[in-house]
Amino acid sequence: MSVNAPSASYSLTVRLEINNKPGMLGKITSAIGKAGGDIGAIDVVSVGNKTITRDLSFKARDEAHGTQIVDGIKKVGDVRVVNVSDRTFLVHLGGKIETHAKVGVKTRDDLAMVYTPGVARVCMAIHHDPEKAYALTVKSNMVAVVSDGTAVLGLGDIGPNGAQPVMEGKCVLFKEMAGVDAFPLCLATKDVDEIVMIVKAVAPVFGGINLEDISAPRCFEIEERLQRDLDIPVFHDDQHGTAVVVLASLINALKIVKKRLSDARIVFAGAGASGIATAKLLMKEGAKHIVACDRAGALYAGRKDNMNSMKEWFAKHTNPRKMKGSIADAMKDADVFIGLSGPGVVSLKDVKGMARDPIVFAMANPVPEIQPEEAAGHVRVMATGRSDYPNQINNSLCFPGFFRGMLDVRAKGVQDSMKLAAAHALAEIVSRNELSEEYIIPSMFDKRVAEAVALATAEAAVKAGMARRKRPRAVGESTR
Amino acid sequence: MSVNAPSASYSLTVRLEINNKPGMLGKITSAIGKAGGDIGAIDVVSVGNKTITRDLSFKARDEAHGTQIVDGIKKVGDVRVVNVSDRTFLVHLGGKIETHAKVGVKTRDDLAMVYTPGVARVCMAIHHDPEKAYALTVKSNMVAVVSDGTAVLGLGDIGPNGAQPVMEGKCVLFKEMAGVDAFPLCLATKDVDEIVMIVKAVAPVFGGINLEDISAPRCFEIEERLQRDLDIPVFHDDQHGTAVVVLASLINALKIVKKRLSDARIVFAGAGASGIATAKLLMKEGAKHIVACDRAGALYAGRKDNMNSMKEWFAKHTNPRKMKGSIADAMKDADVFIGLSGPGVVSLKDVKGMARDPIVFAMANPVPEIQPEEAAGHVRVMATGRSDYPNQINNSLCFPGFFRGMLDVRAKGVQDSMKLAAAHALAEIVSRNELSEEYIIPSMFDKRVAEAVALATAEAAVKAGMARRKRPRAVGESTR
Repeated sequence: MSVNAPSASYSLTVRLEINNKPGMLGKITSAIGKAGGDIGAIDVVSVGNKTITRDLSFKARDEAHGTQIVDGIKKVGDVRVVNVSDRTFLVHLGGKIETHAKVGVKTRDDLAMVYTPGVARVCMAIHHDPEKAYALTVKSNMVAVVSDGTAVLGLGDIGPNGAQPVMEGKCVLFKEMAGVDAFPLCLATKDVDEIVMIVKAVAPVFGGINLEDISAPRCFEIEERLQRDLDIPVFHDDQHGTAVVVLASLINALKIVKKRLSDARIVFAGAGASGIATAKLLMKEGAKHIVACDRAGALYAGRKDNMNSMKEWFAKHTNPRKMKGSIADAMKDADVFIGLSGPGVVSLKDVKGMARDPIVFAMANPVPEIQPEEAAGHVRVMATGRSDYPNQINNSLCFPGFFRGMLDVRAKGVQDSMKLAAAHALAEIVSRNELSEEYIIPSMFDKRVAEAVALATAEAAVKAGMARRKRPRAVGESTR
Repeated sequence: MSVNAPSASYSLTVRLEINNKPGMLGKITSAIGKAGGDIGAIDVVSVGNKTITRDLSFKARDEAHGTQIVDGIKKVGDVRVVNVSDRTFLVHLGGKIETHAKVGVKTRDDLAMVYTPGVARVCMAIHHDPEKAYALTVKSNMVAVVSDGTAVLGLGDIGPNGAQPVMEGKCVLFKEMAGVDAFPLCLATKDVDEIVMIVKAVAPVFGGINLEDISAPRCFEIEERLQRDLDIPVFHDDQHGTAVVVLASLINALKIVKKRLSDARIVFAGAGASGIATAKLLMKEGAKHIVACDRAGALYAGRKDNMNSMKEWFAKHTNPRKMKGSIADAMKDADVFIGLSGPGVVSLKDVKGMARDPIVFAMANPVPEIQPEEAAGHVRVMATGRSDYPNQINNSLCFPGFFRGMLDVRAKGVQDSMKLAAAHALAEIVSRNELSEEYIIPSMFDKRVAEAVALATAEAAVKAGMARRKRPRAVGESTR
């Protein structure tokens, strides 16, 4: 499937008033198909004397393509376009989450228990033992999704209002995939001290903090300070969610090519926050030969030009042989390529120069470092961040289950051992029998994912001394 | 009903294993009744060979009384108390609200619309026009319930964790009574600058801010600064919710005694934040003769002893004739008494000294300034803050509908005209035919309340130029 295939994210619904003549619907659907639209539902809205009104839904490649398809419909004649609605905007109307009362207040007796005067005793019980907040408030199942809107998707610094639909979407995934209640807090400040202070101040309400789409290197300081000062887990998903899912994918890919992580020569493209977190976690798991590259080539200790604090980290902690040269040089005889950079960074020639059975994770979104079609035949295992190729490496495989597990044991914090456990649990969902070049990582719709990740994370938290509760919630047990 | 009547807020459920003998249940229920317990549900849990296990629920006066009743059951003999559970704590388990996804993510197409890549277009639409946040995020129906836990109910400064059950309860009422989504933010800081900064930072997510249980005089500065700096309404419910409901009650009480507000001599007991807000709103409506008293007596311009900033306000803005003396002196020939102080502040003698047809609002909670039983026969209209007497003056009559109305027109702020309109709408729910000494204010379970308050508030916001939307939501129209 090409990059420009019609997508549900550009779904349009057009309402058409069509003259009652035989063959009209066929002409219209042909026009849509001819223009490259992918037709979905066709509904009748009303039938008049001389006309019939229908809603036709179709997918387009992008906005311009949508307009072009509608123009194609108009040219059919004997048809009037009543309106065109964009289904992606329609599903966002009024936002994507709401709050629900878990208790009814139909009678005065209800009210006397959930509000005054009964609530006062509950308040005092928590006041005397703040840990009771886990039992008697929403804390035990509530995560804050915190962003300042400075690095939203690939869109950059679009501010807190602009970031809000992403954070609401994240809250939807938390609930739908793992039963975690999550609330979006998009902050109208970029000041690191203020963000730290705000999150610390709201922390009593929450059992965990998911940091999201905060630009590097600010995200490191914010996360570190919050982890130091708070007694609930703080997890920057862009960093660690990526790291967990990449490690899980790599564990399985290495099984296929029968190589050991400790022997594998691994090349990173992109030296950002997610790259650092991924490299760190791979090294914790035993990786020894990592070389990271930016546009100028390999990062090595002593490189002077075009550096920043993140590149300095790579220069200091990876590339022990101080390899210099271009990304093409770095990829020569490499076993694994991990792309967290931009489109087209890698050429087919680079891939051809890799060691036997190359593993290529080209995760730049939406356009990978190299297109799977181009690399086909020259890689053994290929993965991307996209849903329309096999092996989609997506954070949604980690964060819902990871927080579910941490909440289940009322975790005090996050340790690397928890991330490693989550990665192994995720990898193990694909059994030895099922494992293949085109199936190294489960689908994000696989119901087993969140349960398995949650259980492994919870058990690791208990082992690491990070748990307030010693027994993780059993599979199938209510999340309330 | 006495102050110490059994209450649903002290409901216990005991599980009893009862020997299979005739007449046992009667003996047990008699024991509960004899000890003063008020029996509710009786359920069978299981029936064994020699025993039957039952759950009995009953109301007690307080914790000691509950223990006493359980001891009474034990004395019956042939019965074993398996466990005792406190229903108020049971309903709080896991907290009282949760977040729900309003959109499904069952398929990749769903995901492509509510999350990446589709969401990016929605983000950019808002980034280019932040007002679109009202249409495309939760903002149009989401209120923050913000507290620092410094003045929770009558419990004082019990901190953010202790305050959380009250704020969750408030969120329940917002949703159940007016369809407003509300989220509790209990803050681990008492610093005014920090609180102001935090609320401003989270404001992009919300369509309104409900401040709650923040101690005076800090609450004034916090509210004023937020109202000045934010383009969404900020409403300290302890102040203004009380003011609206007291004014509504007084409008109707004055109809009964056929007096005009502008002529009425009104005595306040208590000179706190809610007193100031109430006095201000009454004066906006036309009240001219207000005298406020603390324990030392009337507050007047020039009084030097035992003053604070709030008492200074009363001294400066009320009591134009500079009346001095005790609260008994102030109540002589007064038409209206408004108690927002503590138990037993007023004696029957004071009430007897009032003008003809005295109106007494004794709103100290849970024990009024004077008990209705004591004042009976000497007052014309009596109201309290309690649910177990007629005429309960409770903020829940205002805040759900008030915010509903503000959200419906996407209000930029709060004006006094909106509070006055809400008070009149609330008063008018009790028709001239229905109006009586024992029915001056509707029940908080009256379905018409939130609708009427919302519509009046919305219309007043439009008139005041505070509305982004000119047409309030029609009655019955979806809140989404």
